[in-house]
Amino acid sequence: MKKGLLLVLSGFAGSGKGTIMKSIVEKYDRYALSVSATTRNPRPGEEHGREYFFMDKGEFEELIKNDKLFEYAQYVDNYYGTPKEYVEEQRNAGKDVFLEIEIQGALQIKEAVPDAVLIFVMPPSVAELKKRLVGRGTETADVIERRMKRAGEEAKGVDKYDYLLINDDIDACVEELHGIVLSEHRKVSRNMPTIDKMLDDFSKM
Amino acid sequence: MKKGLLLVLSGFAGSGKGTIMKSIVEKYDRYALSVSATTRNPRPGEEHGREYFFMDKGEFEELIKNDKLFEYAQYVDNYYGTPKEYVEEQRNAGKDVFLEIEIQGALQIKEAVPDAVLIFVMPPSVAELKKRLVGRGTETADVIERRMKRAGEEAKGVDKYDYLLINDDIDACVEELHGIVLSEHRKVSRNMPTIDKMLDDFSKM
Repeated sequence: MKKGLLLVLSGFAGSGKGTIMKSIVEKYDRYALSVSATTRNPRPGEEHGREYFFMDKGEFEELIKNDKLFEYAQYVDNYYGTPKEYVEEQRNAGKDVFLEIEIQGALQIKEAVPDAVLIFVMPPSVAELKKRLVGRGTETADVIERRMKRAGEEAKGVDKYDYLLINDDIDACVEELHGIVLSEHRKVSRNMPTIDKMLDDFSKM
Repeated sequence: MKKGLLLVLSGFAGSGKGTIMKSIVEKYDRYALSVSATTRNPRPGEEHGREYFFMDKGEFEELIKNDKLFEYAQYVDNYYGTPKEYVEEQRNAGKDVFLEIEIQGALQIKEAVPDAVLIFVMPPSVAELKKRLVGRGTETADVIERRMKRAGEEAKGVDKYDYLLINDDIDACVEELHGIVLSEHRKVSRNMPTIDKMLDDFSKM
């Protein structure tokens, strides 16, 4: 069983990254989603091990102490983090695992797992991003302005990513993402056992 | 117009790389084949600028002197090389250009063009490679043995390549190769102008 990839997906609010991930996981069996750990309380309908691994502060800090998280952060009074164990279990079962995370977390992951693949999803243009945020009709002008400002800040880190995906059309974007994953599997650096086996077979001729 | 990629394809005799290249160029408009230069005489049916750029020794040595070749080599009494001009013309016209070449040449190209993509085509196994060579029925046992030995030598350089393509089925292999090219175009390092434009647009908001 070939080990699966660790795929890190980031993108501005309004980039459509959530929809892309949901859609690719539904369409292809080979993918799994990482499940984060958090100390916040479950909301109605949320399930332990599906939306999050829910735990108390003590348990979370135990994970930190024992280096069992790829990365973690604190928002307001709660911890959020990515447990290594679940991701590695899935990868060892041959699954390519998606992890949706913002840029700081993504760069921490890249440090911990150098062969992780970092993908940044962008709308076709800055104007289109603003249009999408306004079009939702759920945010005030003030919130939209803050999101745009934050996107501008985040955009400065895009050059640390491996791939740039322009989300003009969800289906096309899902196919492109799938293509990137298949190509990554074809990289020589990910196929050294196959190559070593071949060299060995040649030497026996 | 985004500049096309330089795609270097190598593989053992019997890997099917020639068929793959012919097939992908016929199937998709975006590709062009590099045309080599040679001092050998044209064979019946060969055309200048299609199979090769045919030239005399003086002309070829002029190209060498003026650094107009990505790489060149001498076989028997003839020169063979890859003129830069034709490849760059095609790339500037937005074409992804394929170049079929053995490993020494491929590594020279990578040195001259660091963003070239090196792809190695392999049969599914060493046993299958031998079967294909024998199956052709055109070679003596002696020639086959020499080819296998040479393949074993070449295989030691595979780790210098970017991608490994297993040719089990030509059509599937063509699609995988096409997928690799599309993914390469999505690399952040190949999209800096798009990213710079976006950063600029954000700064103007």
